[in-house]
Amino acid sequence: MRVGRSSYRAVSWHLESGGVQWVEQRLLPHRFEQVVSRNPEDVAVAIESMQVRGAPTIGATAAYGLALAWKEGKERFNEFWLPRFRATRPTAVNLFHACDVMQLYSEQNPTITQMIERAGAYADAEVMANRKIGACLAEFLAVGERRILTHCNAGWLAAVDWGTATSGIYHLAHAGENPFVWVDETRPRLQGARLTAWELNQEGIDCRIQADGAAAWMMAQGRVDAIVVGADRIAANGDVANKIGTYALSLAAKEHGVPMYVAAPSSTFDPACLKGSNIPIEEREGSELLEMDGMDRAGSIQQIRIAATGVVANNPAFDVTPFGNITAVVSELGVWQP
Amino acid sequence: MRVGRSSYRAVSWHLESGGVQWVEQRLLPHRFEQVVSRNPEDVAVAIESMQVRGAPTIGATAAYGLALAWKEGKERFNEFWLPRFRATRPTAVNLFHACDVMQLYSEQNPTITQMIERAGAYADAEVMANRKIGACLAEFLAVGERRILTHCNAGWLAAVDWGTATSGIYHLAHAGENPFVWVDETRPRLQGARLTAWELNQEGIDCRIQADGAAAWMMAQGRVDAIVVGADRIAANGDVANKIGTYALSLAAKEHGVPMYVAAPSSTFDPACLKGSNIPIEEREGSELLEMDGMDRAGSIQQIRIAATGVVANNPAFDVTPFGNITAVVSELGVWQP
Repeated sequence: MRVGRSSYRAVSWHLESGGVQWVEQRLLPHRFEQVVSRNPEDVAVAIESMQVRGAPTIGATAAYGLALAWKEGKERFNEFWLPRFRATRPTAVNLFHACDVMQLYSEQNPTITQMIERAGAYADAEVMANRKIGACLAEFLAVGERRILTHCNAGWLAAVDWGTATSGIYHLAHAGENPFVWVDETRPRLQGARLTAWELNQEGIDCRIQADGAAAWMMAQGRVDAIVVGADRIAANGDVANKIGTYALSLAAKEHGVPMYVAAPSSTFDPACLKGSNIPIEEREGSELLEMDGMDRAGSIQQIRIAATGVVANNPAFDVTPFGNITAVVSELGVWQP
Repeated sequence: MRVGRSSYRAVSWHLESGGVQWVEQRLLPHRFEQVVSRNPEDVAVAIESMQVRGAPTIGATAAYGLALAWKEGKERFNEFWLPRFRATRPTAVNLFHACDVMQLYSEQNPTITQMIERAGAYADAEVMANRKIGACLAEFLAVGERRILTHCNAGWLAAVDWGTATSGIYHLAHAGENPFVWVDETRPRLQGARLTAWELNQEGIDCRIQADGAAAWMMAQGRVDAIVVGADRIAANGDVANKIGTYALSLAAKEHGVPMYVAAPSSTFDPACLKGSNIPIEEREGSELLEMDGMDRAGSIQQIRIAATGVVANNPAFDVTPFGNITAVVSELGVWQP
């Protein structure tokens, strides 16, 4: 999608150097920078350290990283690199899906070029899925005054291109529907305030950042027409693991009859996981809540302590929303039913 | 309550200088400093700029500030200072209650010393109310594993001494009950992470800071035994205005059968306000969401931009929780019924 006057993907193959190129998301919204590397370990670290994040982008990045790793020989690929990439993040099932796809393909003993093409096809399929999701979602979101609430970043940064949740919003905008977006800032990592608001702004879509705790109150005031979020994993019964705070949103949506949509490509569905309570929930470092980085007046990135010293934090990164609280789950195949 | 080895109030009369002394809450938790001033305008600005905050502390600060203002003569007291103090904050009814009390007393043409004593009596009555609230609350909170969730700061900083919501927790701790506290960080101003966690830590009470969006999920996991919050205004029908995010908490509490208590001295009750929808909700500057201050590694306070530039924020400071979502409202008179 658009940054300034150009179009970008969150992750792609960098032809000139024969490496993987990704947007360094930790620098956003302050600086827009892309990183290129030919070293598969750098790519694994990029996933682990959340330079790239968002379930579909994580999957595509792992696919490209494994294409790089293929150069190092089949034995190391299976014994080292596949487990290395599978261990980078625990919750997003797309990661494991991408690793499975690349492993299966590797068994055909492809050339390096073929492995790179397979990773590219994986990423392209995600983008195509997002376009289809967006076209379907746009119809659902074209209600009332088109005031749409979203949580975290299920945008193009999270999903290679177009986004999952935002794809519906971008499709609405391209159809001249003038959507307005309430952007939950999404603590602790502020993906809403930093990434979604930045994406929407680059695309010229009107939005307001708000505290996560304000969402239920905005619904109570009748100022939200629909909610759309992404997903990190969807169990066979339709329960959805997504960024912490999504479950609270679903309770308010149910209370106020606000339709709530979950948008995710089929790579996010985990049929082997029977119900939400089986999904492992990543607990992240308390420092995400206790410290904060941002840009000072001189334009440098500073890290500051924001909370009381001597106190620790409880930081579950995801929660599980029961399928019963969701109006519809939309994938590239249309409305999904468990 | 305790800071290090000494005891403090959030606001008091400073005998030595003949002025008002308050804790500069904006510096917490990084620095504990008290400010003393003999100028009533400084006191009004302290309320307005949230150097002091929390409904009962705001009321007591206004009472002391009006005692200072009384020195300047009766005409200016009525025509300038009463409206000046009433205009400092819109939502907390304690402010108007304190102004009314001081206005009524001024009509008896008291001496300056008598006005100061009247303000002191007002503050003392708040503290006595908090002790009674705490004793009553402690019985309700002594359930299960005593894992208590609180939002914002309804602690001694907010309520002169003891606190309203925290008073029950402090009473439990003093009774040897070992409470554990989930502290909602409370965006945008982080009063939970900065003030409540700091207070609890100074009193030696175990707690964890968490994102506001995590509260519903912790309830869904059965890890919260009770919720206790303060209030900024309670309407005649029992609807409670409190920090943004309280309403969302109440929906999760209802869903999971977690008892939710509201603690407030009777000065917080507004019988003239028939229902919650009549309570004016303060909209604060978007910069509270877009910028953040904290302490850098060198120990200096820094302000940083945390959100995308060119995007504005929606910042309702309070929300209204219907009485039906609350288990009990506890004042110094016991359990209150509308």
